[in-house]
Amino acid sequence: MDRRNFLVSGAAASGALLSPLALAAEAAAAAKPAGQGVTRTLARYIVNARYEDLPANVRKEGTRTLMNWVGVAVGGSHHETVERAIAALSPFSGPAQASALGRSERFDIMTTAFINGVSSHIFDYDDTHLKTIIHPAGPVMSAILALSEYKPCTGKEFLNALVLGVETECRIGNAVYPNHYDVGWHITGTAGVFGAAAAAGKLLGLTEQQMVWALGLAASQPVGLRESFGSMNKSFNPGRAAGNGLFAALLAARDYTSSDGMIEAKRGWANAISTKQDYAEITEGLGTRYEALLNTYKPFACGIVIHPAIDAAIQLRNANNLKPEQIERVELRVHPLVIELTGKKTPQIGLEGKFSVYHSVAIALIDGAAGEKQYSDKAVRDPRTIALRDKVNATVDPNIKPEQVDMTLVLTDGRKLHKYIEHAIGSVEVPMSDAQLEAKFTDLADGILPAVQTQALIKTCWQVESLVSAGTIARAAMVANKG
Amino acid sequence: MDRRNFLVSGAAASGALLSPLALAAEAAAAAKPAGQGVTRTLARYIVNARYEDLPANVRKEGTRTLMNWVGVAVGGSHHETVERAIAALSPFSGPAQASALGRSERFDIMTTAFINGVSSHIFDYDDTHLKTIIHPAGPVMSAILALSEYKPCTGKEFLNALVLGVETECRIGNAVYPNHYDVGWHITGTAGVFGAAAAAGKLLGLTEQQMVWALGLAASQPVGLRESFGSMNKSFNPGRAAGNGLFAALLAARDYTSSDGMIEAKRGWANAISTKQDYAEITEGLGTRYEALLNTYKPFACGIVIHPAIDAAIQLRNANNLKPEQIERVELRVHPLVIELTGKKTPQIGLEGKFSVYHSVAIALIDGAAGEKQYSDKAVRDPRTIALRDKVNATVDPNIKPEQVDMTLVLTDGRKLHKYIEHAIGSVEVPMSDAQLEAKFTDLADGILPAVQTQALIKTCWQVESLVSAGTIARAAMVANKG
Repeated sequence: MDRRNFLVSGAAASGALLSPLALAAEAAAAAKPAGQGVTRTLARYIVNARYEDLPANVRKEGTRTLMNWVGVAVGGSHHETVERAIAALSPFSGPAQASALGRSERFDIMTTAFINGVSSHIFDYDDTHLKTIIHPAGPVMSAILALSEYKPCTGKEFLNALVLGVETECRIGNAVYPNHYDVGWHITGTAGVFGAAAAAGKLLGLTEQQMVWALGLAASQPVGLRESFGSMNKSFNPGRAAGNGLFAALLAARDYTSSDGMIEAKRGWANAISTKQDYAEITEGLGTRYEALLNTYKPFACGIVIHPAIDAAIQLRNANNLKPEQIERVELRVHPLVIELTGKKTPQIGLEGKFSVYHSVAIALIDGAAGEKQYSDKAVRDPRTIALRDKVNATVDPNIKPEQVDMTLVLTDGRKLHKYIEHAIGSVEVPMSDAQLEAKFTDLADGILPAVQTQALIKTCWQVESLVSAGTIARAAMVANKG
Repeated sequence: MDRRNFLVSGAAASGALLSPLALAAEAAAAAKPAGQGVTRTLARYIVNARYEDLPANVRKEGTRTLMNWVGVAVGGSHHETVERAIAALSPFSGPAQASALGRSERFDIMTTAFINGVSSHIFDYDDTHLKTIIHPAGPVMSAILALSEYKPCTGKEFLNALVLGVETECRIGNAVYPNHYDVGWHITGTAGVFGAAAAAGKLLGLTEQQMVWALGLAASQPVGLRESFGSMNKSFNPGRAAGNGLFAALLAARDYTSSDGMIEAKRGWANAISTKQDYAEITEGLGTRYEALLNTYKPFACGIVIHPAIDAAIQLRNANNLKPEQIERVELRVHPLVIELTGKKTPQIGLEGKFSVYHSVAIALIDGAAGEKQYSDKAVRDPRTIALRDKVNATVDPNIKPEQVDMTLVLTDGRKLHKYIEHAIGSVEVPMSDAQLEAKFTDLADGILPAVQTQALIKTCWQVESLVSAGTIARAAMVANKG
């Protein structure tokens, strides 16, 4: 036997061969120097935080996060990705405890959490915590909405759990970002598990010690690598993060144990998964500083880098009642990244349209929108869109920041219209309005839910704080069974 | 908005905001320099490898791996850890498709895989691939034994899948060990997911492309951190790895996609999870070099570092028909690690006994064994054991290697008996005999299964290659329902 291996095998390094006791002691000692008590501090906060403690603006933003998520989950619910997931998992599902949004099937809560998590991320159109690029709602909402159908809770309890889940995942994300993301982890799936476990654990009424264990079991199940972007595996990640977090919380609720310092210990999560650990991001300002306030919603179903150009186009169109025929030429001055990432001049399919600033500006001028419909194969191949697209010119300008754009429309009558965007709609600085969120929701649900049901569902989402049972939201988002 | 964040958000780095196409292209390009095609090469091998290709010694070792695993799974099946897991998960289980070993309950295959995986690792008494300290059977057997009850397969197909699963996880483990383990990952859970996915995917008859996806979805779900050693979270890890691997294979079977190079790509598994990547360990000698041959089984239910001392004690006892009363003094010369890790002189509970070379040698001299029973609270507190324990002296000798021991027994009649161990029983060099594996199995199943059933089960395990349906093994390991 190789000596080194034997040493490692026999050493405290290996609980595998050596088993628990000495190792636990060693790990506890090792955990002390940095970040002592991080997991416990966070657990204590989650367990004690009350709905009544939430500032009004946090409750409002939490509600907007909920609203936006339900819309994207309904919108993605009939995508081929979801169909395949359901075909694969249906034979193994437990009782019909929770609802697949936008559909008629019901599954056990963990299967449902996965399915809804997948649906909500398919269009990459969900919410974004820009500091970490985490999509906060996917893991958290998927877990607790399913749970709320099995173990009823009020809308206030639900909103509180949602905010706490978002706080948990975003703060843990802050602690390891960007190093963690740079090396290849899909942070929505890795940090998201904690958010799902925290929120589900809150609704399950875990004690502080149980919450510590839930976070420990969550730490043991990170999900997702960036290499999978471009495949169905990407939307798998928030779905599985939701399921894993729920799994962790349910086990902890039955006193299935973990260790105490799984986030911060020497051989714990943050050290294994990142070369940066800023634990103050997790433990400081709990209950006073809210990451939930930094959540943003995408108004356009494409990469954020072309949002300023789309915003400018829509604003000029609407302010001047423009018709495509009036436009002679579009002159854009853009940050270099716009061309680098979205410089596709002649996209052939819908997905390619998302990587074309030319198509995006054209369709925004024609439709006044850039939702999923504007990125269909049909939209990309429309002769009218193509004609306008060919009139769009983009020039790189080093003075233009990535969040900015400078647009000039030259009209057939000789007029020139100019628009400069400092921050695009959907940013923290210029957030989408409630009405815009509603319009996005309506657009996504179109063709899946009857219009009347969509409007009722939107209303139910806005009124979450007055719901006697939060599970109402899930049932209101189901398609009536035609059977 | 922070400029750096916007850049990252907008950059190809972020599929989150930017979405699939450009990222996939970028990732594919990035994957080329090192380890090109690793995932595909491995997938192709798994898909094409036939039972008929397995050398006789590999089939034999695979059968021993199976035997040992069934015994430890039955042995752990009534531990409090399993009781809590079942209490937590039962309400969400799907149809009764597969059997919890050593028990009367049946669950859906993914829940069953988790439960059996937990049971089998509770005593840290399962098999070990010493090169990586992976416990190979836990993730793989748990996944495919459950699957074989739902989708019937022959014993030959089953054994082939088992060997391929072990190859997959151990080779991937080799590629990243020891760096991956040193930083804190529990390699049985992280590499184990691949083993479970490969073996389950083989039984599901995946195509090469589907197997690539299954490995990709497995890469997205690593399980386990070493910080959790000493808690129920440790046995959670092989259980969840089994469930995750099965989940990956079932999705891939329905064409749920992933990317092509998830193991080796720039932002794939090996780069995210380790600072060492030796891809030749994965791709070279497939079908000619078998990691399955390096699997070992623990004869004693404690850390491997005291196995040589226990081995010496049992050999001297048996060769000389010794009674405890005959022993005046025990003199041990040991490697320093023995004292460092197992120097507990007066253990109070069973678990502490595992960290006491003194208790271990005493009980070995008294019982001629060191199984779970010899590490019960009762055994540790037995006055006869305590009396002998106090006569054991251990001296550190720098000339003694970790796998060695030098023991001298001084008897009350003045005789001196000497034994030097070069390699302890249970090592690759001195493997446990089939009879010893049977004795271990019988001891573990005692009190759980009727003796007659245990012997029949052992026979069924040995005869795996002649089974018409491998699921027979699982049903033969169930406790008859008393209802």
